[in-house]
Amino acid sequence: MKFHAVRAMSRRLAAPLSDADATVQSMPDASPAKWHLAHTSWFFEAMVLEPFAPSYTPFDAGYAFLFNSYYEALGARHSRQRRGMITRPALEAICDYRDHVDRAIDRLCRDEPSERIDALIELGCHHEQQHQELLLTDILHLFAQNPLHPAYKDYAPDEGDGESAPLGFVRFAAGIGEIGAGDEGFAFDCERPRHRVIVSPYRLADRLATNAEWMEFISDGGYLQPLLWMSEGWAKCCGEQWTGPLYWEERDGEHWTMTLSGWRRVDPAAPVVHVSYFEADAFARWSRRRLPIEAEWELASQSRPVSGNLLESGRLAPAPAGRGGLRQMFGDVWEWTSSAFSPYPRFRPAQGAAGEYNGKFMCGQFVLRGGSCATPESHIRSTYRNFFPPDARWQFSGVRLAEDDDDA
Amino acid sequence: MKFHAVRAMSRRLAAPLSDADATVQSMPDASPAKWHLAHTSWFFEAMVLEPFAPSYTPFDAGYAFLFNSYYEALGARHSRQRRGMITRPALEAICDYRDHVDRAIDRLCRDEPSERIDALIELGCHHEQQHQELLLTDILHLFAQNPLHPAYKDYAPDEGDGESAPLGFVRFAAGIGEIGAGDEGFAFDCERPRHRVIVSPYRLADRLATNAEWMEFISDGGYLQPLLWMSEGWAKCCGEQWTGPLYWEERDGEHWTMTLSGWRRVDPAAPVVHVSYFEADAFARWSRRRLPIEAEWELASQSRPVSGNLLESGRLAPAPAGRGGLRQMFGDVWEWTSSAFSPYPRFRPAQGAAGEYNGKFMCGQFVLRGGSCATPESHIRSTYRNFFPPDARWQFSGVRLAEDDDDA
Amino acid sequence: MKFHAVRAMSRRLAAPLSDADATVQSMPDASPAKWHLAHTSWFFEAMVLEPFAPSYTPFDAGYAFLFNSYYEALGARHSRQRRGMITRPALEAICDYRDHVDRAIDRLCRDEPSERIDALIELGCHHEQQHQELLLTDILHLFAQNPLHPAYKDYAPDEGDGESAPLGFVRFAAGIGEIGAGDEGFAFDCERPRHRVIVSPYRLADRLATNAEWMEFISDGGYLQPLLWMSEGWAKCCGEQWTGPLYWEERDGEHWTMTLSGWRRVDPAAPVVHVSYFEADAFARWSRRRLPIEAEWELASQSRPVSGNLLESGRLAPAPAGRGGLRQMFGDVWEWTSSAFSPYPRFRPAQGAAGEYNGKFMCGQFVLRGGSCATPESHIRSTYRNFFPPDARWQFSGVRLAEDDDDA
Amino acid sequence: MKFHAVRAMSRRLAAPLSDADATVQSMPDASPAKWHLAHTSWFFEAMVLEPFAPSYTPFDAGYAFLFNSYYEALGARHSRQRRGMITRPALEAICDYRDHVDRAIDRLCRDEPSERIDALIELGCHHEQQHQELLLTDILHLFAQNPLHPAYKDYAPDEGDGESAPLGFVRFAAGIGEIGAGDEGFAFDCERPRHRVIVSPYRLADRLATNAEWMEFISDGGYLQPLLWMSEGWAKCCGEQWTGPLYWEERDGEHWTMTLSGWRRVDPAAPVVHVSYFEADAFARWSRRRLPIEAEWELASQSRPVSGNLLESGRLAPAPAGRGGLRQMFGDVWEWTSSAFSPYPRFRPAQGAAGEYNGKFMCGQFVLRGGSCATPESHIRSTYRNFFPPDARWQFSGVRLAEDDDDA
Repeated sequence: MKFHAVRAMSRRLAAPLSDADATVQSMPDASPAKWHLAHTSWFFEAMVLEPFAPSYTPFDAGYAFLFNSYYEALGARHSRQRRGMITRPALEAICDYRDHVDRAIDRLCRDEPSERIDALIELGCHHEQQHQELLLTDILHLFAQNPLHPAYKDYAPDEGDGESAPLGFVRFAAGIGEIGAGDEGFAFDCERPRHRVIVSPYRLADRLATNAEWMEFISDGGYLQPLLWMSEGWAKCCGEQWTGPLYWEERDGEHWTMTLSGWRRVDPAAPVVHVSYFEADAFARWSRRRLPIEAEWELASQSRPVSGNLLESGRLAPAPAGRGGLRQMFGDVWEWTSSAFSPYPRFRPAQGAAGEYNGKFMCGQFVLRGGSCATPESHIRSTYRNFFPPDARWQFSGVRLAEDDDDA
Repeated sequence: MKFHAVRAMSRRLAAPLSDADATVQSMPDASPAKWHLAHTSWFFEAMVLEPFAPSYTPFDAGYAFLFNSYYEALGARHSRQRRGMITRPALEAICDYRDHVDRAIDRLCRDEPSERIDALIELGCHHEQQHQELLLTDILHLFAQNPLHPAYKDYAPDEGDGESAPLGFVRFAAGIGEIGAGDEGFAFDCERPRHRVIVSPYRLADRLATNAEWMEFISDGGYLQPLLWMSEGWAKCCGEQWTGPLYWEERDGEHWTMTLSGWRRVDPAAPVVHVSYFEADAFARWSRRRLPIEAEWELASQSRPVSGNLLESGRLAPAPAGRGGLRQMFGDVWEWTSSAFSPYPRFRPAQGAAGEYNGKFMCGQFVLRGGSCATPESHIRSTYRNFFPPDARWQFSGVRLAEDDDDA
Repeated sequence: MKFHAVRAMSRRLAAPLSDADATVQSMPDASPAKWHLAHTSWFFEAMVLEPFAPSYTPFDAGYAFLFNSYYEALGARHSRQRRGMITRPALEAICDYRDHVDRAIDRLCRDEPSERIDALIELGCHHEQQHQELLLTDILHLFAQNPLHPAYKDYAPDEGDGESAPLGFVRFAAGIGEIGAGDEGFAFDCERPRHRVIVSPYRLADRLATNAEWMEFISDGGYLQPLLWMSEGWAKCCGEQWTGPLYWEERDGEHWTMTLSGWRRVDPAAPVVHVSYFEADAFARWSRRRLPIEAEWELASQSRPVSGNLLESGRLAPAPAGRGGLRQMFGDVWEWTSSAFSPYPRFRPAQGAAGEYNGKFMCGQFVLRGGSCATPESHIRSTYRNFFPPDARWQFSGVRLAEDDDDA
Repeated sequence: MKFHAVRAMSRRLAAPLSDADATVQSMPDASPAKWHLAHTSWFFEAMVLEPFAPSYTPFDAGYAFLFNSYYEALGARHSRQRRGMITRPALEAICDYRDHVDRAIDRLCRDEPSERIDALIELGCHHEQQHQELLLTDILHLFAQNPLHPAYKDYAPDEGDGESAPLGFVRFAAGIGEIGAGDEGFAFDCERPRHRVIVSPYRLADRLATNAEWMEFISDGGYLQPLLWMSEGWAKCCGEQWTGPLYWEERDGEHWTMTLSGWRRVDPAAPVVHVSYFEADAFARWSRRRLPIEAEWELASQSRPVSGNLLESGRLAPAPAGRGGLRQMFGDVWEWTSSAFSPYPRFRPAQGAAGEYNGKFMCGQFVLRGGSCATPESHIRSTYRNFFPPDARWQFSGVRLAEDDDDA
C-alpha cells in the first residue's frame, strides 16, 4: 500500500535531523521539519479519521490548533509565522503521534473499507509527498542561515567532466491540443478539467539552463540592467540586493553555494537552481528567448516517461544533463513557466475542506512544471501544476528556455 | 487634430484645483494632478521632441528628472513616493511648460511631417488620456483623506426611481474566436497580436452589479467569511479591516460614500464601484457565479458600439442601468476579469522606450475591461486591456458577473 | 502688547510661501506651515476663548479636529502623519481664521481683563513662538526634498574671512548652585521648580563646534568607527547611511548643503548644524571631550545677556563666532546636552490641558539649550529646556564641547 | 572559588531544557538558552584567555563570530535577531565548550595567577550571572508563545491567605547623600564614581505594588485613559493593545498568567510583575504617587541587608510581602525608577573591550533597582543599576511607589 511507503519516507527524510533542527523556522515561508511531520498526520486525522472513524480518539486535543495549516473550514489555527516557537512537543512525541495516526488509518481501512476513504488517503499521500519536498527545501534554507554551514547529508556526486552539453532546441508544431488531467487516476483539482488549447509553433530547449550560462548572465551585468527585468522584479532585485541565485556567494573569484551536502563550489555543468521567476524571466530575455507557456510544456511532455533525477536518486541536487533529445523534463529542477496560476476553464474546487487546497491561491503565483531532485517519483506527472510567487527562490526552481518557431 | 483636444481636456480637468490640491500625493499609488499634467508633457518631450526635433530646447533642464515616471531607458528619475514633495514649480509654471511643449509639437508637425512622429503623438495622446482618468481617481482619493470632504465638482445627478433593473444573463455559444487588436489603427502593444482563443459556452450578466446587491453581500457576512475569499484577499481584508467598498462609511444605519461631487448617500440602483479584485471575486463566489474571462468579455463586446457613461457625460460617477439587452459594457466602471495580465501569444513589446509601457508590468496584475465614467470615449475600445493589482480599490472598478452555460 | 507682535511675526514668516508650500508635510515629524498657522490659532481658541469667552463662535466647527496637535483632554484629532492631506482650507482661509481669532482675543481682553487670561495668552504666545521656529525648520526640510532646491529667502551673508576663531575653554568651579525658573515671570512648567544642584569643576568650550572641525571628524572616519558611538546611534548611522550632517552632500570634493537661502557651499568657519544627539556625542568622544550637562550649561549662562544670532537677525543660519570670552551661548544653534529630559525634583505639570505640554514627553529625549538662529529673542532664556529625540537632525541643533576640570 | 559556583549554576538552570528549548529565539530582545551558555563562555575566552593565555586553543574557530554579542572591539559577529537559527552546535556541544573553557581558566589561574586576571574573571562571573537571569526570562517568554503552556519547572508555592499586607509609606529626610560604588570591591563601571546627591524629603512604599492593586487599576480604566500615560507609552499601549501585564489573560472573569511553573491563576497578594516603565509610570500617576528617583532608592537601601526572594529561593516568582517595615527592597521584582540611565558625573567606561559593557547604552533606557526572584544573591547590591527600555515587559519588573514628603 502506498500509504505506508509514503509515511515511512517522511521518517527517513527526518532521520538526519536533531530535535533542534526539526523545530526552528527560518522564515515565514518555511516550516519546521517537525511541523511538516505533524501537519501531514493531522491532515489524515482531519480529512479521514474525524469524519469517518467515529471511535477515533485524537492523540492530543491541542494538536489540531497547532498543526492545521490554512484550512478555514477546519477551525482556528496557530499563526503561520510562529511555527518555530513550538519547542514542545519534541520530535519524539511527534513520531508517536505519527504512529498513532498510522494505526488508526490501518484499523479504519481494515474495518470500514470504502472508495471515498481510499480517495482521501490517496490525497493525503500526495499531500505528504508535497511536504517531503518542502521539508528538504526548508531544512536547506535553515542550514544556509548557519554560518557553520552544516550538511543535511554527506554526498559526493561524481564530478563528471564539468562540461555542459551544448544547448539545442526541439521543435513543436502549431495546433489544438488537450491538456489537464482526465477523469481517471489521481490528480489535484487544479489539474482539471482536461480541455483544449491552441498553440503556435514553438521550440523548447533540450536541456535546462546551466550554472555556466548563469555565470555569463552575471558577468554580462544581468543583475544590473533594469531593462531585462519585470518592473516588480527589478524592485526586488535592488531591494534585496540580489547578485546571483539564492545561496550563491563569491569567494576569491569563485562561486560557492549552500547545498543539502553543505558548502560546495558551484558546478558549471549542473542546472542553475534557486532562482526566482523574476530572475528566470530576466535570464530568458537576456538570452533573447522566453520562458515556456505551461500548455507548451505539458504538450511536449505528454509522451515522455516520468523519470529523471528525482528524490529517489538520493542526489538531492540537480545533475548535469546527459546527451541526446529533450532531456531533464522531469526531475532536477522545477521549471518556471510564463503562465500565471489561473483556474482552467470550468475549474471546480474539490468538495469539502479539500476545496481550499489549490483554488484559493490562484492569484499572484506562477506555474512551475516537471518536479525536482526533491520530488518523489510517484508524485509527479505531466499534468502536475506546481505554483509559487514570482520572488520565491528557496525551492529547487530553475529554467528551461523556449522560443517562438518562426520558421514553421 | 486630436492632439489639441486631448491637451485641452487635461487643462479643463485641472481647472477646479488649487495649487495645493494639484501638489499633494495622497498615497504612493496616486500622483499629484500637477505631476500628471507635467508628466504627460514630458512624455511628448522625451518620445517625440528629443529624438525628432533637434533644435528643441527643453523648458527646464531639471524636469526630465522630476517627471519621468518609470522609463529606465530615459534616465534617472525622482522617487515615485516622493512626487508630493515638489511644491515648486507651481501649477502655473506647469501650465507654461505645457504651452511650451504644445508649441514645439505644432512646429514639428508643420515643419517635419512624418508617419513615425504622428504615431508617437497618437501614443502620447492615448497616454495622456490614461492620465486624465488617473488625475480624477487620484484627486478623489486625496479629497477623501480630508475630513471636510471637499467636492471636486458640484453635480446633482437625476435621482431616478432608485430601482435597479432586474439581473438577467445573456448566452454566448462555445467556439473558436479571435481577440486582440489587428495591425490597423491605434492599440497598445499589449493588445496585440490578434490571435485565436477557445471558449466554452458562457453567460454574461446583462448589467453591472449594483450597490443594492453589494449591501446584501455585506449584510450576509460577505466580509466575514474566509471561505468566500482568495487566501491573499482574506489576509488583506482582515489586515486593512475592509467592511465595504473603499470610501464607504456607515452612519446611522445608512451607507455614505465619497465621490467627486463630495459626500453622498450611496445610491442602491447605481453600479458598485471602488472594489478590489479580491472583493469582486468574493462577491462572485457568494453569488454562486464567477468573474468573466477576458476573452469572454471581448468576444461579447466585439459587435457593440463604444458608447456609455464615459468621461464626456460629465457625471463622473457610475449611473444606474437602463433596460434591455447587454448594457453598460463600456463606461460606468472598469470590469474586473479573472484573467491575469499576461502577454498574448507572440506578444512583442513596442520598439524603443515605449516598450516599457506595458510588458514589464505583466506580473501580479488582473485585467479590467470596458472603461469607466472617467475614461474618454476616444480612448476606449473592445480590445483595450487595463490592469491593476488585485488589491487596488481607488480606480473606478466594479463587477459584471458571468457563469458557465451548462445548458448549451 | 506682545500678542500682536507674535501673531504678526508668524504671518511675516509665512509670507514667502505659496499655498502648496504651506500645505505639504515632508515627514511625520514635520508639519505644514499652514498647519502651524492654524494650530497656534486653535491653541488660543481652545485654551482661552472656549473656556473664557462664552459668546465666542468658532470660525469653523471642523477646525478643532484638524488642528489639535496632541491634547487628549481637548478631544479627538486628525492623525499627525496625515497633516499634509489637508489641501483645503487654503492658506488664505487660514489667514482669515487667524484674523477671526485675533479679533476675539482683543474683544475678550478689552471686555473681560483678567490675570488668568493674560497668563494663558502669554503661554499661547510662547507656544506660537515655538511653532515659528518649527515652521522654518519644517520648510527647510520640505525644500530639501525638492531636487530643484528652492530658497525660502534670498540672503547673502557677509562671507568674512572663513577663519574660525581658535577653540578655548572657560573654567567653572565646583559647588552647589541653583537652576530652574523661580516663581516670577513666564516659564514653561518643565523649567520649574528652581532647585539646588551639585556640580564638579568643569570647562565649557568658548564657542560652538565648527563645520571645519566636523569635516576633520568626517575625514578621520568619525562616521565609520562604531566605538565612537552610542549603540543605538551606531545602528541609526548604519541604517540610514549617515555620512555627514543632515542636508550635506559632497560634490567634486566639496561639501554643499541645503539652507533657507537655498543650496550653498558649507562655510568652514560657521557652527555645524543639523546634527543629532548621536552625532554630537560621537563627535565629543572623538574630540576626547564630552557634551555639557544641562546644569553646567545653565549655571554658566545665568549671568549672561540673552543676545546673539537669533531670529531677529534675519540671517536664518548660524554665523561664525567672533572673538573673546564665552560666545554663542544664545542663538546660532541649539546645543545638545548629555542630560535626558527628566522632570526636575518636585516637578508639577501645569493645571488643565496645558499640563500635556511637556510632562508627557519626559521619556527618550535629550535637553538642548540656548536657542538658535530661528528662535525669537523674546522666547529664549537661561532656564529654557528644549528637547528632541537623540536621532532628530532637522532642527538647528549643534554642539558645544565640555570637559571635566581636573586641575581644579 | 566563585567561578566554579557561577559556572555550575548556569548548567543547573539549563538542566530542564531540551535541545530545541535551548535553541529557539522567541523575539529579537531574547536569546536562546544555548546562546547564553555559549556567550558567557566566549566572554571568558575573549576577555581572559585570548589576551592572557598565549597557548590557549579556541574550542572552535567559528564560535567567536557566533557568540560575540555586541563588542565592536572584538570583531565581526552574527546578527542579533538571527541567534535562533543556530541549531548546530547542539546543546551538548555547547556543554563541551563550557568544559573546555573552564579547564583553561583553571590552568591559567594555577599557572599565571594575577590580580588583573582575577578582576576580569570576577567581571566574567557577574556577566554570567546577568545572563542567568536572562536565560530564565527568555525561556519564560519562549514558553509563553506555546499554546500548550509548558512549565520550565514544577513548583507549588504555599498559597498563603491571599491577603496583601496594607500599603504604608516610610519617610526619608532631605539632605546631601552619597551614592554609587566606592573604589573597593566589585561593581560595574556605570555604578561609579561614588558622588554626592541632593534629595528633597520623600517617602517610599513599604512594599511592592500587588496584583490586587493592579486589577483595580485595570478595572478603573487604567489602560484606557491617555491622560495617565506618557505620550510614547500611550502609543505603545494602543499599538500593541495592552490590557494588562505581559502574559496576563482573562478567562471567565479571572486573570491567569504564564509563569516558569506554567499557566497559573494570578495571585492577588503577590507583587505585580512583567510591567513596562510606561505601565509603572501610569499606575503611579493613577495612584496619585510617583516612581522613585534612583538616588532615593539607593539612599533608602544603603543600610539594609541584601536578602530577599532571590534566585536561590527556587521560587522563580515574586512572593507576597510579609509584615513590618520597608520590605522587598531586594529580590521579587526589579523596581522601575523614574531615572534615565545616564552616566554619573565623571563616569569613565572600563578600559578595553569591557568599556562597551554599559556606557554605550546610556540612551533611551530607565534604571531599575533591587534585583528579582531570578537574580543570584551574590550578584545584587545597593548600588546596582539595571536598565531597560521603557517598553520592556519580559523582565521580572514591577513597581514600588514613592511620593514627595510635604510634611517634612
